[in-house]
Amino acid sequence: MPHADTAGMLRLQALLDAMPPVRALGLRVDHLGAERIRLAAPLARNFNDKGCAFGGSLASILTLAAWGALEVALHRAGEDVDLYIADSRLEYLAPLYDELQAEAGLPDAETLATLRAKLAARGRGGLTMQAEARDASGRLVARLEGRYAAVRRD
Amino acid sequence: MPHADTAGMLRLQALLDAMPPVRALGLRVDHLGAERIRLAAPLARNFNDKGCAFGGSLASILTLAAWGALEVALHRAGEDVDLYIADSRLEYLAPLYDELQAEAGLPDAETLATLRAKLAARGRGGLTMQAEARDASGRLVARLEGRYAAVRRD
Repeated sequence: MPHADTAGMLRLQALLDAMPPVRALGLRVDHLGAERIRLAAPLARNFNDKGCAFGGSLASILTLAAWGALEVALHRAGEDVDLYIADSRLEYLAPLYDELQAEAGLPDAETLATLRAKLAARGRGGLTMQAEARDASGRLVARLEGRYAAVRRD
Repeated sequence: MPHADTAGMLRLQALLDAMPPVRALGLRVDHLGAERIRLAAPLARNFNDKGCAFGGSLASILTLAAWGALEVALHRAGEDVDLYIADSRLEYLAPLYDELQAEAGLPDAETLATLRAKLAARGRGGLTMQAEARDASGRLVARLEGRYAAVRRD
């Protein structure tokens, strides 16, 4: 396990806990490092009529993993923005009977610099992000590609 | 308002209430008729860090509206199936500060007949469905196109 950003995890957890539907999922920030974030939520709160993970809960945790990765990267860079999802593509590859987990990579330095230049020039900018959900054995069960829009708060 | 299928609404509501993450959204079957279904959920349970509707909750209610439309149509036709979401495309067009509502049309007779022929031949079949979310003034705020897979239970 790489070095964890404990202060960043606590900050993001507080941000997520302030959203009632996210608290209802039982969602927690499982890991936050320099380059990746992982969220988790118990199956007991997130199963469907078939006893496996509810698609809407997978959509939520994947949407939030990619959102959180971008939010953290922009916060670390000193940006104060509102971050919206603009669109997403979700693939559900296999039923999941384990804890829900979703992982996303933070944008790299060059991608972040390009986005920050847009924010500086126009007060807003967009970025496409990915997130993946795997079962306990490591098999990919769902993935998201989504476009996010950042808008400076000022 | 067209004729409502009250028994069908109660059956679907019970099915939805059996899923903990759906109950957490406060989701209710607002209307079910011969051709359309509408689901609703209070903003108070579904707002995000910006005070508008959480994208994950919109994903859930849209996914369930299209799922519910197909579930009801297959149930009315006497099919006993498990119904899974396979993939979806979500567009978030505007922030929503009202109650969440999502509407979907039931598949028409010909589409349903084609799907039932696949179920009869192979025990499974798929269908692409749409759902829309509008604000209180009727403006489109989000939409989903998703592929669903039906698998006969027996």
